[in-house]
Amino acid sequence: MKAMTYDGPGRRIWKDVPDATVESPEDALVRVDAVTICGSDLHILKGDVPEVTRGTILGHEAVGTVMEIGTSVSGVKVGDRVLVSCVGGCGRCRFCRANQDGQCLRGGGWALGHLINGTQAELVRVPFADRGLHKLPETIPDEQALLLADILPTAYEVGVLNGRVAPGSSVVIVGAGPVGLAAVITARLLTPSRIVVVDPASSRREAAVHFGADLAVPGPDEVRAELEAYTEGLGFDTVIEAVGIPATFELCTSLVRPGGTVANVGVHGSPVTLHLEDLWIKDVTITTGLVDTYSTPTLLRLMGEGRVNTEGFVTHRFGLEEMQDGYDVFERASDTGALKVALFRD
Amino acid sequence: MKAMTYDGPGRRIWKDVPDATVESPEDALVRVDAVTICGSDLHILKGDVPEVTRGTILGHEAVGTVMEIGTSVSGVKVGDRVLVSCVGGCGRCRFCRANQDGQCLRGGGWALGHLINGTQAELVRVPFADRGLHKLPETIPDEQALLLADILPTAYEVGVLNGRVAPGSSVVIVGAGPVGLAAVITARLLTPSRIVVVDPASSRREAAVHFGADLAVPGPDEVRAELEAYTEGLGFDTVIEAVGIPATFELCTSLVRPGGTVANVGVHGSPVTLHLEDLWIKDVTITTGLVDTYSTPTLLRLMGEGRVNTEGFVTHRFGLEEMQDGYDVFERASDTGALKVALFRD
Repeated sequence: MKAMTYDGPGRRIWKDVPDATVESPEDALVRVDAVTICGSDLHILKGDVPEVTRGTILGHEAVGTVMEIGTSVSGVKVGDRVLVSCVGGCGRCRFCRANQDGQCLRGGGWALGHLINGTQAELVRVPFADRGLHKLPETIPDEQALLLADILPTAYEVGVLNGRVAPGSSVVIVGAGPVGLAAVITARLLTPSRIVVVDPASSRREAAVHFGADLAVPGPDEVRAELEAYTEGLGFDTVIEAVGIPATFELCTSLVRPGGTVANVGVHGSPVTLHLEDLWIKDVTITTGLVDTYSTPTLLRLMGEGRVNTEGFVTHRFGLEEMQDGYDVFERASDTGALKVALFRD
Repeated sequence: MKAMTYDGPGRRIWKDVPDATVESPEDALVRVDAVTICGSDLHILKGDVPEVTRGTILGHEAVGTVMEIGTSVSGVKVGDRVLVSCVGGCGRCRFCRANQDGQCLRGGGWALGHLINGTQAELVRVPFADRGLHKLPETIPDEQALLLADILPTAYEVGVLNGRVAPGSSVVIVGAGPVGLAAVITARLLTPSRIVVVDPASSRREAAVHFGADLAVPGPDEVRAELEAYTEGLGFDTVIEAVGIPATFELCTSLVRPGGTVANVGVHGSPVTLHLEDLWIKDVTITTGLVDTYSTPTLLRLMGEGRVNTEGFVTHRFGLEEMQDGYDVFERASDTGALKVALFRD
């Protein structure tokens, strides 16, 4: 089969590899019908995720068709159209039993395209298929379902729910990449009074407003002005970090009100400064997290009911064999205006 | 009246000052029968709390007798024996209505010995007396009640409850000063499986074990060995920072398990490094806070029922007029073995 493989920092190769197969009783073999590229794939290519070894097939988001199942799999059957989630746990370890599949101790969690071969291929082996696959209703097209593989549950669980967004609350989202925009979409499920997005790229600010932000501003000065105007200088109830660099994290901790929450969603590669000399007295909560996907069934149902607006999220479409072109467009998002790139089997 | 006043960094003066009086309808005037000295008082004397102005009477913990009340006060009456809590809010602002008196927007919160004159005097004016004073039952002696003014609710709310200590959980408390020891005492209310305390001073480690720690170790190497042995390398469910310096905060974030909580109680004077490059993926929650004293009535009842063991917490006793001696002993705690110093009216 063809697959996109990581060949060390800066190098990705689309090449022939041995077909994926069922290897354990809990596996399913899935034919990839649609797949996308994540910011984390770019992090891996930069060498930021050193546990990814050369030759690993990239990708952890897909929609596909079940071709074969292991003897223990009971949640899906051959021929089912399924969402391949970025995270699926064993269901039995202490973390999975607490619905924290992202921290699975038995080889689950974020395995695809990270610790094992991923979804950017013609076939993918999905471990712990009963928890890592979700049967899709016909009403949800592939392109929309793809957003449930990672960015929507990640933004919702790690940003919105960890951040305790609530009816009437004030929310700042720093960073309007795909996860930041998914945070706008899923924050609206809780009816906050105000969602402010901070991003230097005007195309992303426009997208933020399209997906439901009340205000999108380019930088720290403008968001601080909004803090004074909207919160009377107190700070925002929830601040979501969706970038992953020290400057944006520090900005986030300066925007939160006493008693508020900073929910970090960004993937960080270096330490940050935490101003405890200001924050120790402020009743602030800071959270981090990898998505656990406990919300995926709920988001899937809401999407089926038309309650999650993702129209326009996929900006570029390719055939599966045009994987390199898809990466080229996604890597140059600031020029191409790419939000999500989707690649489809012919 | 006599009072201990702050005279700028490094200088404290016990001197005659005008008698405290009722100034607003919500005030009470309290005669101080017993008072103690807090680590925060030492922070103020070091100049770490710049909002404290010269001439301010220090102290935010006392037991006393109500001498006079403002026209709006209904919760206590003249002659009542009361606990003077370090924090009391207006009861009406958005924070007080959320039980976050520590963040009161109308002059409550930590006012005594900070923004207004405090308790280390013969008389003290207590603002928002209905929320800042707690009537004491006869069964609780002054010396024990004093611990409810600050350290027990602080350790319980900001450490134990923010830290989500629960039956069966594993807890590390870094720092066995008065607040760290109060965290040991109040953590036991939740029946964790293991409380490990880290402190370089052997007298404090002994006190920690006396108050209920399962293990007390001197430093990072020993607590890391315990992490390997007791948590199989995973990390502790709850880590409570009760020191307030960068090194101990960083130690705390290295000890927490995925999905666990670091509850900061320490008063910090400088920024710390937060290793988000490791923590972003770990589902960690970090909390900060000033005590709100919502737990004080509960702790008071538990103390009355004999469920809070504080025997031996007060190590040194003085007359009120020996305030300077009390400070001398408390400041040299590592030599004197002082935990809490209590000063009593003759």
